[in-house]
Order: sequence, then C-alpha cells, then structure tokens
Amino acid sequence: MKLWGGRFEKETDQRLSAFGDSLPVDCRLWREDIRGSIAHAEMLGRAGIIGRDEADLIVVGLEALGKDFASGAVALEGAEDIHSLIEALLVERIGPAAKKLHTGRSRNDQAALDIRLYLIGACQGRKADLLALIAALLEIAEREVDTVMPGYTHLQRAQPILLGHHLLAYAEMFWRDWERFGDCERRAEISPLGAGALAGAGYSLDRVQVAEALGLRGITANSMDAVSDRDAVVEFTFAAALTQTHLSRLAEELVIWSSAEFGFLALDDAFSTGSSIMPQKRNPDGAELIRGKSGRVVGDLVALLMILKGLPLAYNKDLQEDKEAVFDADDTLAGCLQILPPMLLTAHWNRGRMRAAVEEGFLNATDLADYLVRKGMAFREAHEVAGGLVRLAESRGTGLSGLALEDYQNASPLVDPDVYALLTPEACLAARDVPGGTAPARVREALRECRHRLDVILECRDGRS
Amino acid sequence: MKLWGGRFEKETDQRLSAFGDSLPVDCRLWREDIRGSIAHAEMLGRAGIIGRDEADLIVVGLEALGKDFASGAVALEGAEDIHSLIEALLVERIGPAAKKLHTGRSRNDQAALDIRLYLIGACQGRKADLLALIAALLEIAEREVDTVMPGYTHLQRAQPILLGHHLLAYAEMFWRDWERFGDCERRAEISPLGAGALAGAGYSLDRVQVAEALGLRGITANSMDAVSDRDAVVEFTFAAALTQTHLSRLAEELVIWSSAEFGFLALDDAFSTGSSIMPQKRNPDGAELIRGKSGRVVGDLVALLMILKGLPLAYNKDLQEDKEAVFDADDTLAGCLQILPPMLLTAHWNRGRMRAAVEEGFLNATDLADYLVRKGMAFREAHEVAGGLVRLAESRGTGLSGLALEDYQNASPLVDPDVYALLTPEACLAARDVPGGTAPARVREALRECRHRLDVILECRDGRS
Amino acid sequence: MKLWGGRFEKETDQRLSAFGDSLPVDCRLWREDIRGSIAHAEMLGRAGIIGRDEADLIVVGLEALGKDFASGAVALEGAEDIHSLIEALLVERIGPAAKKLHTGRSRNDQAALDIRLYLIGACQGRKADLLALIAALLEIAEREVDTVMPGYTHLQRAQPILLGHHLLAYAEMFWRDWERFGDCERRAEISPLGAGALAGAGYSLDRVQVAEALGLRGITANSMDAVSDRDAVVEFTFAAALTQTHLSRLAEELVIWSSAEFGFLALDDAFSTGSSIMPQKRNPDGAELIRGKSGRVVGDLVALLMILKGLPLAYNKDLQEDKEAVFDADDTLAGCLQILPPMLLTAHWNRGRMRAAVEEGFLNATDLADYLVRKGMAFREAHEVAGGLVRLAESRGTGLSGLALEDYQNASPLVDPDVYALLTPEACLAARDVPGGTAPARVREALRECRHRLDVILECRDGRS
Amino acid sequence: MKLWGGRFEKETDQRLSAFGDSLPVDCRLWREDIRGSIAHAEMLGRAGIIGRDEADLIVVGLEALGKDFASGAVALEGAEDIHSLIEALLVERIGPAAKKLHTGRSRNDQAALDIRLYLIGACQGRKADLLALIAALLEIAEREVDTVMPGYTHLQRAQPILLGHHLLAYAEMFWRDWERFGDCERRAEISPLGAGALAGAGYSLDRVQVAEALGLRGITANSMDAVSDRDAVVEFTFAAALTQTHLSRLAEELVIWSSAEFGFLALDDAFSTGSSIMPQKRNPDGAELIRGKSGRVVGDLVALLMILKGLPLAYNKDLQEDKEAVFDADDTLAGCLQILPPMLLTAHWNRGRMRAAVEEGFLNATDLADYLVRKGMAFREAHEVAGGLVRLAESRGTGLSGLALEDYQNASPLVDPDVYALLTPEACLAARDVPGGTAPARVREALRECRHRLDVILECRDGRS
Repeated sequence: MKLWGGRFEKETDQRLSAFGDSLPVDCRLWREDIRGSIAHAEMLGRAGIIGRDEADLIVVGLEALGKDFASGAVALEGAEDIHSLIEALLVERIGPAAKKLHTGRSRNDQAALDIRLYLIGACQGRKADLLALIAALLEIAEREVDTVMPGYTHLQRAQPILLGHHLLAYAEMFWRDWERFGDCERRAEISPLGAGALAGAGYSLDRVQVAEALGLRGITANSMDAVSDRDAVVEFTFAAALTQTHLSRLAEELVIWSSAEFGFLALDDAFSTGSSIMPQKRNPDGAELIRGKSGRVVGDLVALLMILKGLPLAYNKDLQEDKEAVFDADDTLAGCLQILPPMLLTAHWNRGRMRAAVEEGFLNATDLADYLVRKGMAFREAHEVAGGLVRLAESRGTGLSGLALEDYQNASPLVDPDVYALLTPEACLAARDVPGGTAPARVREALRECRHRLDVILECRDGRS
Repeated sequence: MKLWGGRFEKETDQRLSAFGDSLPVDCRLWREDIRGSIAHAEMLGRAGIIGRDEADLIVVGLEALGKDFASGAVALEGAEDIHSLIEALLVERIGPAAKKLHTGRSRNDQAALDIRLYLIGACQGRKADLLALIAALLEIAEREVDTVMPGYTHLQRAQPILLGHHLLAYAEMFWRDWERFGDCERRAEISPLGAGALAGAGYSLDRVQVAEALGLRGITANSMDAVSDRDAVVEFTFAAALTQTHLSRLAEELVIWSSAEFGFLALDDAFSTGSSIMPQKRNPDGAELIRGKSGRVVGDLVALLMILKGLPLAYNKDLQEDKEAVFDADDTLAGCLQILPPMLLTAHWNRGRMRAAVEEGFLNATDLADYLVRKGMAFREAHEVAGGLVRLAESRGTGLSGLALEDYQNASPLVDPDVYALLTPEACLAARDVPGGTAPARVREALRECRHRLDVILECRDGRS
Repeated sequence: MKLWGGRFEKETDQRLSAFGDSLPVDCRLWREDIRGSIAHAEMLGRAGIIGRDEADLIVVGLEALGKDFASGAVALEGAEDIHSLIEALLVERIGPAAKKLHTGRSRNDQAALDIRLYLIGACQGRKADLLALIAALLEIAEREVDTVMPGYTHLQRAQPILLGHHLLAYAEMFWRDWERFGDCERRAEISPLGAGALAGAGYSLDRVQVAEALGLRGITANSMDAVSDRDAVVEFTFAAALTQTHLSRLAEELVIWSSAEFGFLALDDAFSTGSSIMPQKRNPDGAELIRGKSGRVVGDLVALLMILKGLPLAYNKDLQEDKEAVFDADDTLAGCLQILPPMLLTAHWNRGRMRAAVEEGFLNATDLADYLVRKGMAFREAHEVAGGLVRLAESRGTGLSGLALEDYQNASPLVDPDVYALLTPEACLAARDVPGGTAPARVREALRECRHRLDVILECRDGRS
Repeated sequence: MKLWGGRFEKETDQRLSAFGDSLPVDCRLWREDIRGSIAHAEMLGRAGIIGRDEADLIVVGLEALGKDFASGAVALEGAEDIHSLIEALLVERIGPAAKKLHTGRSRNDQAALDIRLYLIGACQGRKADLLALIAALLEIAEREVDTVMPGYTHLQRAQPILLGHHLLAYAEMFWRDWERFGDCERRAEISPLGAGALAGAGYSLDRVQVAEALGLRGITANSMDAVSDRDAVVEFTFAAALTQTHLSRLAEELVIWSSAEFGFLALDDAFSTGSSIMPQKRNPDGAELIRGKSGRVVGDLVALLMILKGLPLAYNKDLQEDKEAVFDADDTLAGCLQILPPMLLTAHWNRGRMRAAVEEGFLNATDLADYLVRKGMAFREAHEVAGGLVRLAESRGTGLSGLALEDYQNASPLVDPDVYALLTPEACLAARDVPGGTAPARVREALRECRHRLDVILECRDGRS
C-alpha cells in the first residue's frame, strides 16, 4: 500500500514504519482527504488530463469509500498515511483508473489541503462554541441584572459593580476570540492544490476551479511556500491558546467564588464532584480542569513553533508533527467551551453574600474622593484626604458611612451632609456612568447590544447554511 | 512622587520599591504617556470637568516636558513608574493644576492606553521593516531571474526551480506576517481611557472624543475587560514569534547555502565574521543569530501567556510584567528584520554551483514519470518505472540523460527519443506551468505582482503620512 | 579591537556589529573572564608554552584591569565581546606579551568556561537565597506553632491543619530546589578550557592544572561537546523555572489570604502598595509580581531549548543568545527569593480568622468517617454515612457537632456519645499522627528537623568559606 | 462505581463525567495502582487496622485482577478513574472486605504514588535506551576509528577531526542525560502514601514499611507537599526535553550529511523513505521526525509548568492534567531513542567524501598559526599572518599546501620548509593532543573509556536485576 518504492532495493524496516507512519493520527482527516480528491479528480477529468469516465469512476469510488469509513465498515488502518490508504482502497475497488488519481498531485500539496479543510471546520466549530458560551453568559447577566457584587483589583475589593458587568467582561474576550478564529478561517481558505511536490504540478491543472469546488477563496501564490507553510495551523493553535487563557481566568474566578470564604457561587451538584476520603467536599473540578488545560494548549503552540524553527524549504517530514498538536488544541478547547454553558447556567449565584461583601469594605472611597473633586479639590489631594478617612474609619471598626459629619469636616471643610447619599452601593454604581461603565443603565445597554450582535450573527450563519 | 499613600502608616520598604517599581522598563513609554495625558486633559477642559485654563496649562506643561525628555534634559528616573514621574514633574513645573490631571483616570486605564499606543507604533514599524525585506528579496529575485537551482524537500534535491521562485516563497510568508501585524494594529486601535480603575470613571468623560484625538477607531465596551485585557500585547508578540520563525527558516538556508559543500551563497566580507583562532573562517554570524533569536521571541510569547493564566479580574500587578516581554520581542524582531536587507543585497550568489547541482542529481525523475503519463501510463506505474530507471542510472554512475534509449524502452515501450528533450533543467522548469509554479513565465508574473503590490502599499502609506 | 580579520578585505559593516556584538550583555562576565585568563596564563607559563615572565606580566596586567573594571575606572565598552575587550586593553597596557594570552585557547572554550564559572556562582547565590527563605518560613512556623487553619483541596475547606504545617510544605519544595541547584552546580564544575575551537588545542596544555586552579572538579571529555554544550545553562534555567513555579504557588496563596474574604494575612504597610485612584486599597503587589514572574522564567527556559534545537556541532553563533536568557532567569529568581523573607516576616497572621474558618465548615467529616471505621464499619460505607450526616447538618444550618446523638444513631447505631470529642479541631489535628502529618507533635518534630538541617548546612558552608 | 456521593443530591452530569473522567488516560497506571494497593493492604493487615484475613483477601483479589487486566480479560473502562475502577472491581469480586482497602488512604496520595512508580520505571526504561544508543554510537566510532572528516563551526569547515570524535561528542550528551534520569529516578523514590487527602492519614499507618515493600528509599516529609507536588513529573519531562534537544542536533546532522552536497552518509534503504511523486527521492524521514519531535516534548514541559503555575495548596484538579503530558514525553522520547540505533548502525558512511572535504578547505590554517607561534611569534600576529596567506591561496585557487615557500617567507621569515609536513590532515589531527582532543591516540583512549563505562554499568544493572 505504499505510494513509492521503485528505486528502493529493500523493504522499509518495520521499526521505521511504526515510528513514522502517520495513519493513526491523520486517519482523522479522511473526510477532508476524500473531499479534496473528489475535487481534484473532477478537475482532471474536465481538463482532459484523465478520461471523463475515469474521473467519474474515481468520484463514485471515493464517495462509496467515504460512506464505508463513516459507517465503520472499513477500518482506518493498514497503510503509511491516510492518503496512501485511500488510494490503495480505491485501487482495490475500482481498479487501474484509481492509479490516475494522483496525477498532478503530491502528498505534499494534498496534506496541505487536508489540514486547511480541517482548520476551516475547526474554526467554524469553535466559533459556534464561543457564541454558545457568550449566550450563556448573557443569559445569566440578564437574569442577574440587579445583582451587585464587589469588583476587585489585586483580589482586593475595589468598587461595587454589577455581576452582569463582570460577566460581560468575559463576553468581550470571547468576542475577540471569535474574531480571531474568523481571521484564521479566512486565511485558511486558500487552496494549495497544484503546488505539486514543491515546484508546481507538471500538468495544466485548473487550480482555481478546484478551489471553487471546495468553497475556498483562492489559490496559493507560490508552490514552495504552499507545501512548507503551516501558518494556518499555528494561527489556529494561537487563537485556541489565547481563548484557553481567557477561560483560565474565568475558571479561576469560578474556583475562588466557590470557596467557603467568598461563597458567591455554588455550582450545581450535577457539576460538582466529591472526595474519596472527605465526605463533606463539593469540588469545582470542571473549572479547575479548564484552568489547567490552558497549559496544555500553550504547550501545543510551543510545540508547533519549535517544530517549524530552522526548517529549510520546502517540505520536511518534521511538518508531519503538526497534526497531533493542533488536534489536541482543538479537542481540548472544544471540551472546555462546551462544558461551560451548562455548568454556568445551572450554578446558583448567592446575591446575599455578594451584597454583604460590597457593604463591608471601603469600596466607596473613590466616590468620596470624587465628591471632594466636585467640591473643587484637586484629585490628588482628594485622594489623600479620602485615604486618611479610610484609615480613621478602619481604626474605629466602621465604614465610611459610619463616620460623623464632624470627622469629615475635620478632614476637609468642603464636606456637607450630602456626602452620605453618595456612599451607598447604588450611588457608587450609578456614578460610573460612562460608556462601558458599570452604571445600571450602561450595563443594560451593553446587554442589549451583546444580545443584538449575537442574534444578527446567528441569523446570518443559520440563514447561510 | 507617589500617587497614593493617604491610608498608609509606613513608607514603602526600599526593597519592595526596588523589586516592583516599573520605571526602568516603562520609561520607554513616555511619549505615549504624554500623548494620552494631553488628549485626556484637553477633554477634561472641554467637558468642564476641570477649568479650560487649567487644561491649557497642563497641555503646555506636558509638551514642554516631552521636549525635555526627548533632549535628555530631564532624566527618566526617581519615581515608581512613568505615570507617577510625569505627574510629579508636572506638579513641580506648573503647580496645583497638575494635580487635576488624574481626574477621571486611573493608572489602570492609563497604562492600558499607553501600551496600545506603543503597539500601534510597533505594528507600523515592523510592517515597514517587512516591506523593506520583501523589497530586498524582490530585488534579488529580479536580478537573478534566470538563475536555476535545485529545489529541495527533506534537504534532498527534488526538482529544478528558479532562485527567484525560492525567494518569493519567503516573500509570501512575510506578506502574511505583514497582514497579521495589520490585524493586530487594527484591534489595538481602541481606547480604554475612561474605564477608570475597573468600573468606569465617575465623571462625564467624553471617551469617544479622546479616542478620536488619539487617532483611534473606537472605545472599549466594558471597563473591567479594558483594564485587565492584554490581548493586543499577546497578539503582537505572537505575530512577532511567527515572523521570527519564518526568519529562522530563511536564516537556516543562508547558513546551509554558505557552507563549502553547498557553496550557493557567499555573504559579503562586511557581513561575515571571523574566528579568534582559525584564520580561514568566514562565518555567517548574522544568519545564525537571527535563527537563534526565534527562541527568544517564542520565549517572550510563552511568558505572556503564562503570566495571564489564571488571573482573576480586573487588574492584577502581574500584568506589569507584560512590558519587558513585548519590548524584547519588538526589539529582537526589528533587529533581525533590519539586518537582513543589506546582508542579502550584498551577498554573492554562485550561479555556477547552483546550476551544477541541478545537473548532478535526478531532479528530472518526476518529469520522466509525467512523460510516461502523457504517453498513457497511469501515474502510479509511471512512478514505479521512473524509480527503476533512476536505480539503473545510479548503478551506472550516470544521470537519466545518460541512459540509452534501449534502457528506456526495456523499461517501457512507451518511451520515444523525444524523452531526452524533457530531461533538461529548462524543460523541467517550463513544465511547472501552473499558477504559483516555477515555470519562468509564472515566476516573472509573480515578480510583477509582488512589485505591484509593494508599490501600491508604499504609495498609500507615504501618501497618507 | 577585533581578534580576527587577516583574511578579510572589508571592515565589518556597522549594522552587523550593532546587531551581533555581545559586549553589552557579556560584559557582565568580566570577573569570570579575567579569572579564567589568569589560570590559563599561569599554566601557559608553567608549561613553558610562553615565557614565565610573560605569564607573570599577563597575570599582573589582568589583575590590575580587574580592579579598574571593579572601580569603574575603565568602561566595559568598545569591543565585539568581553573577551576581545580584555585582550585589547591588556595589549594597550602591557604590550606584545598580551598577544600570547590567547595561545592554545579559542573564544569557544573561553566563553564556555566563563558561563560555567558564572553558573557556579549563581547556583551558590540562589542556594543561599533559598536557605534564607526556608529560614524565614521556619521562623514564622515556629512562632505560629499553635495556629490552626483550614487545609484546602480544590480551594474547598478540607481538614484542619497547623499554619506551620502549611508553611513547611513550601520549605519542602525549596529544599528540593536547593538540591537541584546543587546538582547543577556540581555538573557545571568541569573545565572546557583546552577544547580549543572545537578539536582540542594544538599545544601541550595542562588542562587538569587549570581546572584545579579554578576550583573545578575535572575537565570535559570531548572537545566538540565542550564548545557546543549548553546543558549547564539549560539546567540552571530549569531549576530556576521550577523554583519560580513553586514561588508562584506561595504567591497565589499570599494574594488569596490577603483578600477581605479570607483575611488570614495582612502584609505590612511597608510591603503593600496603594492605588492611584482608590484611596482604600492595600495591594499585595509583591506577591503578584512574584506570581507573574514565573511566566518570564519559563519563557527563558523555552528560549534556551528552542535556541539549541537542531544545531549541528560544534559551536554556532546561536549559542551567544544563551546569556540574556540565563541572566534574566537568574536575576528574576534572585529578586523574588530576596523580597519574600522580609515580606513574610513582617506580615500579620490573623489567627482569629483562621480559627473561625476551621470551625465553620465540615472539616471534621473525615474524622467522623474514621470514627465509624474504628467502630467496625468499612471505610466506603463510613464515607457514605458521614456524607449523609453532612447533608443533614447543612440543611439544618449547623455543623456536625450541632447534630443530636439521635441523628447520629439514626444514621448508624455504631455511634456513641464519645463521637463529639472527636469532632473538635484539636482532635482532628491530633488524629493526623503519621510521619509528615499535621498532628502538633509531628509538626514540632518536622520543625526541629528543618531547623537542624538548616543549621548543619549553614555551618558547613560558612566554615568552608 | 463512584468513591463519593453521600452528600450529593444529584447524579453527576454526563457531560462533566465525559469531560473530567481520567480513566482513558490513567488506565495506563493499572500496574502501579495495584502494586501500591497491595503494599497498602498488607501494611493495614500487619498493623491491625483491618483484619489479616481481610488483607489477604484483598491482596489475592488484586493479584487476580492484575492478571485479568494483563490478559485483557477485563476491560479498563467504566469508572471515573483507575483507582475507582480497581476498587469497584475488587468489591464485585471479593465483597465487603474490598471496601476497607481505602482505609487511611486518599486518591490524592494514591495518585501521587502511582505516578512516582510509573516515573521510576520510565527513568529505568529511558536510561536503558540511552545506553543502547551510546553503544551504537560507540560501535560505529570504533569501526570508523580512522575515518577523518571536517569538523565544523558555524557550519563552516574548521579543523580536521575523526568521525569517532564527532560521534563521541553525542555520547557525552547522552551520558549526561543518563545521569539526569538517574537523579530524577532517585528523587522519585519516595513514598507519599500516608499523606491522606492532605493532612496525613488518621490511622497509625506504618509508612516506612509500605515504602520498603515498594522498593522506595523513604517517605515524604510533609503531607500537604506530598499530595500537591509534581516535581518528579516536571523533572522527568525536563530530562526528556533536554535529551530530545540533543537528539534534534544529531538528527539535523544526519539530515545535512545525507544531502547530495555533503554526501557523508547514506541511510540504508530500509531506513529511508520515498516520495509519492518524485521517483528518485530517498528521504531521511526518521531523522527529520526525531528533530521535529523535540518541539513536542518541550511543549509537554511548558504544559506542565504552566499547569502548576499559581496553584494554591494542596491538591487541585488541574494536577490531573499532568499525565497526558508526561506520558506523551515518555513515549515520544522512547520512540526516538529506539529507532536511532538500527538507523545509525545500518547507515553507510562515505569515507571518501569526508576525506575529500578535509583536503579541500583551509582546515589547516590554525596549524599554520600554531607553527608560527612555536617559531616565536605571538599568537595574535600569527593569526593575522595565517589569515593573509589563506587569502593569498584562495585568490590563486589553491590550498595552503599549494603555496610556495617564497610566499610563506614573504609573509614571515620564520617559516621553514618543515611547514608543509604540518599541513596534512594527519598532522593537524595529531596536533590536537590534549585530553579530550581529536588526536587519534586521544580518541582511542576515549573510546576505551566509554566502552569500559558502558560495560561496568550494564554489568551492575544486569547483575542487580
């Protein structure tokens, strides 16, 4: 079942085959390989490079083979790689015509096409997953539109925010990830077929026609680049790694919020796990795994960049190692993206704990400083005065609202009794009334915009397909 | 010179300051910080948040300070970070009005803006460098338009190609890099100013106006995301890492081609170095360094992704570590991109050695197989027959052209005397006549297109600025 | 000031020098370079390869130069690298004899020696830092020997532990790191001098004598390996990366414990920082930076491994890139290790908050299961029964101690009134009475052993030096 | 088959199980898990924590289960993880006694033990593979003991060396790798069993006895560290990554030497592969794959370090992600180490090409400089003079031996006719007569030492087992 051998005097050593054969990994590309071969064969027939009837025979044979793979009737084993396997099985089935399929094609450009077709599908898949995750965040944010919680910087309570505002911050990250997968998809939609082994095919192929038949946007401009380029693989894995890094941040918050000390969140029993020894435990395993898996996808990215380092043109066998890394990145990301929506949607958000946390700290100290600014003090001085008042309140075991007017006026004669009204969480929230701020009206607006964007995209996508 | 301290009872320990102060690194952002502060101050004045005259005073003060930094009259030292330094120096110079500059702004959104402004400039810089490198490759490719050399896969001679075709493969990579920097630039052009510390500013800022004044495309949609997002930093570093990986491939080829055994290339004396012990050595140091530096930039990318892993919202001090990594990636890439054009343009390409290498091997074996296909044989069989003839020729110490017609006809009766004409390098080249192939006409076409694309971009860019 | 050039017809292009000269980085190795050169010169003199008087002249000249570098009287600038600079300055000072210093030596083996000498010092430095950090952890653990706190898994309260036990877990990590730096130091103590450019020196050098003079354990066994090996650099950086990963875990805990919600720890004002906008903030910046810097050191490790990937023997210029990575790793780690002891020793541990947290949860549920086991139930059933009782108590808003005996006996008739005595934190702690467990007696024992180990090492080390 | 659940009101969601269950990966640890459980059960019996007869029943049951796993009679599926599966199957087989096996043990310490046992075996396996590779290199080096070839720096011909010397450079790297795996093995041989979930077991376990029964050196000193530490996993993967980096260098040389231009090496047909399109190709696929796989193992290392970053104590679910990375690193390295010996031993070394390459360049220029030094010239000047003579010879299209005595004496009157004798490859080789140098006598000595070291180790190892 080997596609070469004429000049060789010996059989390949079994150990080398076991080491180098890629079928156990690239068998996953059988759909893409068959799709590409069909488009190639049809073009060969149309261009008269092989007979029309031969082309038809090949196409029918490939389609039948695809059905057999899909049903499991034919096992994906017994050859060097998926390309050899498909060609060998085709020869078995349709005879000599099959031997003409590889005319004007090399495994180099064929493999480059297959991985591009795979990546296009992967981009579409992960984009759909991202939309579903954004939809879940949005649903919770809408449901909890009045839930106030502490916003943190340095994990120190900073200013009151709305839970919906916090969740929308993640939606923003995932929108950017969605865009990056879109860029990657667009750049992948270029056909390398016709690049041959490295120098271009020696037949009058209609490269553009093949690309169109495959739904691609265009053809590669340089044959040597076409067979040695793995940019789309690396870009996809980078987009996955950055998305996974975003997920690790969300996961970290889910873990922290699930702690007894924070108590903001309780994952549902169905999305929690226990301990083999401590009967009381309810662990946020899913979130922890998502966090940990960020390392894995970044590892895949490093693998790819290092594989490419220092490779001369054109194709080198090292490039075969691209697949496991990118498949692993894709599978890992898909798993994480898909587990999150049900995990989040079934979780219980403890509004009381969040509210209490807002009231306990000094999350209104900035508003006190801003108050002084509005009364005419320079911000730097206002910051200093407010800092001193925090220290005073802390020493008395109270909050800023617990200080007497006299205390305030000792610190600055600018303070009037109207200061107290500005120190409530509601006033603090309302004050953050800039575009993108946490003021309730702004958050509601952001929710509407996010919902609208989602609707438009889903409509487009589903209308299209 | 500290921007906080009101609530603190003790001075910061010197050791912590030495450990945590970022001025030695972020001093590099003084231009961006001043630009951002000017836009912020002007808006504060226009919006009536501070007095018009105060705003004017601040702007004039900042402009003067910028001149003093540029001339070296004022040292970039003596504060916690560049933001504190500039504010402190401004207070010294213009007095109390300066204390109003920080109204409605936090170092969190300010730092986020500064790095975005930096990245926009860095993207433009690296894009310009990439264009210059493409121009150099193009110049050589045009000059060597008739130079034939072996194309390699697996570092084994594969098929004849034109040197220009090989160089254009790199141009393709660099065009993609150029596009990626463009995507990154576009995504960076969003103003985070107004996000405040994390929840949005507590003043009626005109965020859009500030963005426009800074030449940005829009404003961030969520304040928490705005201050904790470092996507643009990571994307830039990824674009740099992938570019650097491409450079490492070119560098590897320069090293290999410079070896005595290949001898395709001799770097100019001015771009070679010697040995402290071996008097005969002429080393391609520059190329080796470029190759090695790929590790460094990938290291920077890993650093950034790992820094971000598992960080809860919003700002955390860990984010301060983004700067050294991205500055290092930018400087490293800039250095490599800028050394290559003169190194390449002054190099001597040894046409004779390349031509000889094309004639020595069996680079025409594919053409023999293709010949048999055209005579009606299936490609798989043609491959087998050609492989056997290679083995025969090799055993006789000759090339395919050195075999007698009888030898050919023993192998296959399909062969006619016209086979010899197809075995010359010129015929092999000419046969690769698909779009993107190495046929001379196709390469000339590709050169024209590359030149045109370059001209259009340069015209646009220089017309714009 | 160049060490080569005889065969070159042109001067090196300024751009290449700026790109490739390593002096700005390797100037840091002046001490090591002078030490190595002195040992080499003395041996050359003793072996009669150069005159004794010449050797003396060189040694005196190098010593004087070292003093001038140390005092800053001579600037570290103006040559290609530190080796060239020192030789050139020596020629200036002592004349022609200086030109004999490089006899039997190449920059390849010289640079390999310098970095080894540097690494030996760096290992010793970081080992000392680790001991100081262990000492600080130990001091706190001894001070807080009775402080009880919740032990966590999955950031969920798990079982009561002693704070000292928790801190000693980090001491264990740092002991392992200390050992790894020791292994690295030992493996670095081998002299490559005499390997020449790659094939061995062409003079009868006494390699062993030079190694001894430098305090090294032996000499490299293969000259080609000697000049192309960077294992010691990579190993050091790995040891640093793993240490830094340990530090990131401690730092994460410091951040979490400093949150208002946990409240277990308050860093001293002198080791906290504030916000430019929120007057109430006290941020654990130092801990966050330590956490973030783990990314940086892992980035350095990746850089090194990738630099080495695919380099043929022997020396290649890529290897020059090893220095910035390893220097950065060393400096970063040193900074983190050195800031931690004062930060930890001045922090305030809130015993009340920790105690309260132990009492609130169900941290004694394992002890209840263990109680049932001792009464004869199989562990798996005991776990099930205890889990049910946790659910019951939770539904009643109480702890396990708050359940009535009847509740227990409904769940299992094995329970007697003696169960209550086993549910206190003290009983839970005492029950973990295995070597390495958190039972107070075990922790005291572990503290004694750690203290003893530390004393012995410090005594040895300080006695030795 | 779940080991927990008493306190849960709902079943685990299928999606979470699919996402989080580790059995598909950790099933590979069934041998280690059974070994550890047997040692634990025996100790429980001896210590009277469970009945002697119960312990016996458990041990017999586990042994039988192990046989069934080994024979494939029982499938490794149907539970959350390997620990749960084995316990559940044991309950099925021996009834209630099986439920006592988990007494005094948690999956946390159990999993920590299993991976340590695995790593010990992996270290031994890779050490054996390294010895076999060293033996192969040694065999070739001995066979080719008189083969001379060019030594390179910067891929430029530098000085003549013996092929054996070159191969021994790799043996040195692999010896160091062997040592590092030994260090890792030693550090792994510590039993964490008894650490319980995190705080130590609540039973009077004899931890030391269990460790001894498992052939381990000792027990962990701190229970929290014991369950959250993955240092051994990271160290192993680092040792693998550095080994793989060494392999990538050897692989690069195999690829370069196999090129038509170098032609030093021809891999056997059985260890070469062909092209699906170019009939003449013989590709060194195996070497390329080894080179590429270095990226993969470094990716695994990055994954592990990033997974550990910022994890609070003690166990977190993220740690489950350690296994796929370390298994992949181990499998990848094993594959590469095992394919190399047959690939190298069957390869044909082209002595004629190597010899010719030595004679063509100016590899004797250093010897000319050294000659001048012996005649009294300072090395720096000698280097300059030799460089000038290289330039002269090059301009005449000859080598240094081709210059007339007059030419030499024009350059320096110190030159006598005896210079010519020193310019032959043999003289150059002989001159490198320092320990570790390439002089034939030194290389023979090094071969003997390497052979001796190998013999001693193999004898020890095989005598031991």
